[in-house]
Amino acid sequence: SLPLMLFGGMNVLESRELALEVAETYVDVTRRLGMPYVFKASFDKANRSSIHSFRGPGLETGLAWLAEIKARYGVPVITDVHEPWQAAPAAEVADVIQLPAFLARQTDLVVAMARTGAVINIKKPQFLAPHEMRHIIAKCREAGNERVILCERGSSFGYNNLVVDMLGFGDMKQTGHPVFFDVTHSLQRPGGRADSADGRRAQVAELARAGVAVGLAGLFLEAHPDPDNARCDGPCALPLDRLEPFLAQLKALDELVKGFAPLSIT
Amino acid sequence: SLPLMLFGGMNVLESRELALEVAETYVDVTRRLGMPYVFKASFDKANRSSIHSFRGPGLETGLAWLAEIKARYGVPVITDVHEPWQAAPAAEVADVIQLPAFLARQTDLVVAMARTGAVINIKKPQFLAPHEMRHIIAKCREAGNERVILCERGSSFGYNNLVVDMLGFGDMKQTGHPVFFDVTHSLQRPGGRADSADGRRAQVAELARAGVAVGLAGLFLEAHPDPDNARCDGPCALPLDRLEPFLAQLKALDELVKGFAPLSIT
Amino acid sequence: SLPLMLFGGMNVLESRELALEVAETYVDVTRRLGMPYVFKASFDKANRSSIHSFRGPGLETGLAWLAEIKARYGVPVITDVHEPWQAAPAAEVADVIQLPAFLARQTDLVVAMARTGAVINIKKPQFLAPHEMRHIIAKCREAGNERVILCERGSSFGYNNLVVDMLGFGDMKQTGHPVFFDVTHSLQRPGGRADSADGRRAQVAELARAGVAVGLAGLFLEAHPDPDNARCDGPCALPLDRLEPFLAQLKALDELVKGFAPLSIT
Amino acid sequence: SLPLMLFGGMNVLESRELALEVAETYVDVTRRLGMPYVFKASFDKANRSSIHSFRGPGLETGLAWLAEIKARYGVPVITDVHEPWQAAPAAEVADVIQLPAFLARQTDLVVAMARTGAVINIKKPQFLAPHEMRHIIAKCREAGNERVILCERGSSFGYNNLVVDMLGFGDMKQTGHPVFFDVTHSLQRPGGRADSADGRRAQVAELARAGVAVGLAGLFLEAHPDPDNARCDGPCALPLDRLEPFLAQLKALDELVKGFAPLSIT
Repeated sequence: SLPLMLFGGMNVLESRELALEVAETYVDVTRRLGMPYVFKASFDKANRSSIHSFRGPGLETGLAWLAEIKARYGVPVITDVHEPWQAAPAAEVADVIQLPAFLARQTDLVVAMARTGAVINIKKPQFLAPHEMRHIIAKCREAGNERVILCERGSSFGYNNLVVDMLGFGDMKQTGHPVFFDVTHSLQRPGGRADSADGRRAQVAELARAGVAVGLAGLFLEAHPDPDNARCDGPCALPLDRLEPFLAQLKALDELVKGFAPLSIT
Repeated sequence: SLPLMLFGGMNVLESRELALEVAETYVDVTRRLGMPYVFKASFDKANRSSIHSFRGPGLETGLAWLAEIKARYGVPVITDVHEPWQAAPAAEVADVIQLPAFLARQTDLVVAMARTGAVINIKKPQFLAPHEMRHIIAKCREAGNERVILCERGSSFGYNNLVVDMLGFGDMKQTGHPVFFDVTHSLQRPGGRADSADGRRAQVAELARAGVAVGLAGLFLEAHPDPDNARCDGPCALPLDRLEPFLAQLKALDELVKGFAPLSIT
Repeated sequence: SLPLMLFGGMNVLESRELALEVAETYVDVTRRLGMPYVFKASFDKANRSSIHSFRGPGLETGLAWLAEIKARYGVPVITDVHEPWQAAPAAEVADVIQLPAFLARQTDLVVAMARTGAVINIKKPQFLAPHEMRHIIAKCREAGNERVILCERGSSFGYNNLVVDMLGFGDMKQTGHPVFFDVTHSLQRPGGRADSADGRRAQVAELARAGVAVGLAGLFLEAHPDPDNARCDGPCALPLDRLEPFLAQLKALDELVKGFAPLSIT
Repeated sequence: SLPLMLFGGMNVLESRELALEVAETYVDVTRRLGMPYVFKASFDKANRSSIHSFRGPGLETGLAWLAEIKARYGVPVITDVHEPWQAAPAAEVADVIQLPAFLARQTDLVVAMARTGAVINIKKPQFLAPHEMRHIIAKCREAGNERVILCERGSSFGYNNLVVDMLGFGDMKQTGHPVFFDVTHSLQRPGGRADSADGRRAQVAELARAGVAVGLAGLFLEAHPDPDNARCDGPCALPLDRLEPFLAQLKALDELVKGFAPLSIT
């Protein structure tokens, strides 16, 4: 197995300066740890709870910032797209383009993304069983793209709560595609605040450890230098100054688990 | 309370001839029953499980057929939109435009729909608590449109199953907006067939009765002359030849329930 | 179909006087309405959240009070049992003995109850699918008793919440046994108060109507003259002075629904 | 933190010989690994799906076999009790007595068990939120016993499925009591076979790793030399010949995780 890859960054591109600061921290930490790394940030948050919520710099500016980060730090980047017309321009800059969970069933968007030839990171919808991901993979394949990653981010568990089904990782691995784990969004408490989701970032380490111990291709993570003042999903964000010890532990865990002999239990 | 209104029709516009046949049946039946009626059909099924699934005639042709039905039978029409650019042309023909459940959090789509001035039918996402619908209503209001209808269509209940929370109707009524019940989609078994959802249409009458007995503004229903050969969601569709007795029973139930004195239990 | 039967009473036998008051009200109301009626109360609440919660008068005193009610008002009675040794004495007084939801899988209890020959009311566990009730029915049958009633009381829906699956009634009817609906316990919010369950009694009428509209053999109901001061499950109890209008509406609904011609949708 | 303890054994005491064989294997393996160990087996399976299911040797014989294992191998033993009168005799032999999940709210049973002074292992009911375990702890404390262990075994997730909420371990640790993880029962598919639960034993290693990575006091495990012919819960049982590599991996994982510095994320 390959070592754990990190799709890590920030939720939304709050400003060019902050994006550079966050990217530099991730790059430094992952280089010290020898961890394969892709910088993640969104140019637009298209599904906030409130119309007044901050959405980001938009496609053009956002992609320019991502291109700058890519050039300056020599790292691949990943960003998410929300409408079919955004797929091609996003894929000109981004190495991986991400299909949002709520949109993962929209055929036109899936096809437009697949046709770019970029790697597609499919967030598993909160309402979808792990084995149903094969339908979305099939759509990509039929559009000519088999470079697909599957990414867990929690399942609806009653109202206003998510649960991560650790057995779902194994179900998704059966597809043969790499399986990632978006640990920070899985900490969401949907509808938990007056006009946005709440989150349980104090438990980010234990949830990440659980997932990595199952044996994953990669981790998806959002961090922020000041989570309480982040403009989106701060309640789920890892404090940026905790990044290095957090990742160092997960790296050790990943190495241990991937060194285990298969047990072949049938 | 006003009498039960029907948003009734077919899933996808399979052909002009079939649409006319279905519309004529609904119009005849609802006129005989004295039931306020809006014809429903989709011009595009944008989120089918498979890329090979039938999607419909597309925006232009579909709207032309809806316009013909509207003119020929003198009934309002409702159709669903999937991308912001579709909202304005759809609202030129449709009296009610529908926000799909999976897309109900997409701010650009909500705003584009609200700005048309049409009535908006918001399908409650399978992953959203009833009281969270207020966020989507607020987005519409802030875009200048308060003519909003809320429509239940089931909540995720584990994998591959939906449940209708009858107490959620009351939670949604607290918003002051009319509450409808999409009974046929609530019968879905997501992922229940090899490449599409299964459904439980044999139970459509009992589920519809349960919802109508709570006291609703309206019912949303899809029917088909040959459900086993419908091109989408046939497993949930009411056989068209059962429409009149089905609706006659619900009308009687609605009249009884709306005649009840309030019980004021606190 | 037979008319709706009522298993109605109070949660726990708080005192002899209160039990008589409650029974008399139910008897009067159901006689005026012509509704078949069985008085329900518990002699022991064996699974309260707190050790300090009121539990009731115990088996001997409780059964004496039930016998008095039975004799005085000429009505059958139902009560619940929690351990195998209680089944026989309970069945000497009670016409129907009830298997609690949490205990519905305990073989010794089921067998002891079945062997009394009394009618058994099986509460569906919150963790059990409707079609799984056949296993409990089979245990009764193998112990020689086929006089079994199935009673819905809500399914776990995430943490601290229940949902009533209206399609589950139909699944349970497939067994051929009468299906009842415990509407007041279905209103529970488990763990909703500091040391007990909360409830949503303001919504009792809409939930009861939904269930009765499906077509049921009977309703299970708890009421109290002063729900805010009830010693158990007050948050779910119907105020006793609302009993008559509440039941009158359900009776009208039941008569309407049972008069409907079958629709035979396959 | 103390090293991971194992409550390990077999589901039901199928025979004296098999119990000895299983116990000997566990004892040998855990001694080689230096893992604290308690032998687990049930003398009675009181809540099987079918009345014809094998239940075990009963209290007297079962306790005799447990006493023999305890004496022969010098290990503590744990067994589960189902009715209050069983608590005292069970506690004469067993060092830990276990409160079954379905029965965890039965006050008389909890109190009878607590009064024995034995350590109590409380299985978390499938219908209970992790933070609600405090009510059961309080019952034990008020009965004079604070030697309580909390044990996760999955939560109801729709019908016929369980999910393990990895964040629930942290919620339960807040109580200050040791938290264990019953990994084999968490693999159940309730109602998955014609007359019993199905299970997913092929995934036992990944689920166990996920839990142990969170940081646990102990693991609960059932194994069998021939799972396909086990008399209860074979679909969930670890093949006994896989025990040593399975535990060796978990031990390494536990040591790694317990060596991590706390991250203090707030």
